[in-house]
Formats: sequence, structure tokens, C-alpha cells
Amino acid sequence: MTNAADIAEIYIAAWNETDVAARQAMIADTWSGDATYVDPMAAVEGHAGVDALIAGVQERFPGFRFALIGEPDGHGEHVRFSWGLGPDGADAPIKGTDYVRVEDGRLKSVTGFLDQIPG
Amino acid sequence: MTNAADIAEIYIAAWNETDVAARQAMIADTWSGDATYVDPMAAVEGHAGVDALIAGVQERFPGFRFALIGEPDGHGEHVRFSWGLGPDGADAPIKGTDYVRVEDGRLKSVTGFLDQIPG
Repeated sequence: MTNAADIAEIYIAAWNETDVAARQAMIADTWSGDATYVDPMAAVEGHAGVDALIAGVQERFPGFRFALIGEPDGHGEHVRFSWGLGPDGADAPIKGTDYVRVEDGRLKSVTGFLDQIPG
Repeated sequence: MTNAADIAEIYIAAWNETDVAARQAMIADTWSGDATYVDPMAAVEGHAGVDALIAGVQERFPGFRFALIGEPDGHGEHVRFSWGLGPDGADAPIKGTDYVRVEDGRLKSVTGFLDQIPG
């Protein structure tokens, strides 16, 4: 049984890590080497792909941070959680929900959906 | 690009079909032969597995029907939608969200989560 809260926290922490070496180490620890990520705007594979994706989002939204919304929920190797992205301490203008499959304790696939984008 | 609304409607229709032959024909049309389904209470595979799962839920909740909540949302081969299960015309006591992967136009995998269960 996967711990949904732990998975979600580790995942979000990497999205917020702006130190490149630290972020790459976190990704290597927590994602499978052949992991896949897909959302309405991007599709990447592997540690380098995930790192480049996160770096690109950090560059596009400087000073924004990801934060969990509500409680992560999981069963078996499946986890889902919702998040907001916005300036620290302010209401998040961008919100989404990610569905994650875990394999051998590491993120194997992530499928993201957007719940709110600025109108 | 998968039509999220069509996928969700076809999926829900099978859950509501109590005529066994009609339901099995719908499942054969819309699910891959090696499709998988998993939620917090069940994990099944293939057309016969999906049919037995649906038959079991119909038997457990006689007279209840599934209905979509909100708008199905999709990108690429990925679809998500929320549903309610309850007596026809009444507020649904059971609610959930399903994440679906489509392959060659048919349901390849479904991962379900529960959003509300009677307290």
C-alpha cells in the first residue's frame, strides 16, 4: 500500500526545488528511470525530461510555488492529489489534479489535469 | 484527440445497462479485450471481468443509476470525469472520479477513486 501523502509531498517538493543539483537528486530518488509524465501542455520521459519540464515551469512562473490542496488519496499503487500554483501566501491562480502510478516505491507515471486556469 | 464527453457517456451507459446481453455487447464494443479496471474495492481485467464487476454493483445497489457530474475533461488519450451513484432523480449518496486511458478508441485502463461515501 502506497502512502499517498508521502508520495504527494515528495512530488510537490521537487516542483518547488529551484537548486538544480538538489532537484535532480530528488527526481533521481523518487521517479523511475523510465517514468512518463503527461498533462494538457507537455509530455516527457525519464529523469532528464522531468527535470527539464520542472525547470521550464519555474522559469515561466518565477516566485510561484506549488502547494497541495486537500488530502492526497490512494489505493494500491494509485495516488491522486490536487495542487495550486501561485505566489507564496496568495490564492493560487492555477490549480490542477495529478493522477500518479507508483511502481517499486517510485513514480512510474503521472497524468495531470487542469482544474483552474486564469480566465 | 479523444472525445472526453463521448468516452464518459459510453462508459456510464454500460454501468447503467441491466440487460445482460446488451451490456456485454456494449463492453465488447468500448473496452479493449485486455483492459484493466481498478478502484479502492475491486480490480478486474477483460470484458468478462468488467461485466462481472458491473453486474455485482447493480445487484448491490438495485434501482441506483450512475450519472455524470460536471464536464468530462481530456487530453490526448487521457480522460477524467466525475459521477454520482444513487436512486434515479435523487442526490447521489456515492460519488467518484474515474481516470481513463484510451487506446485505439477503446477503454484500455480505468482507475477509480471515491469522492464521497455515506458516512
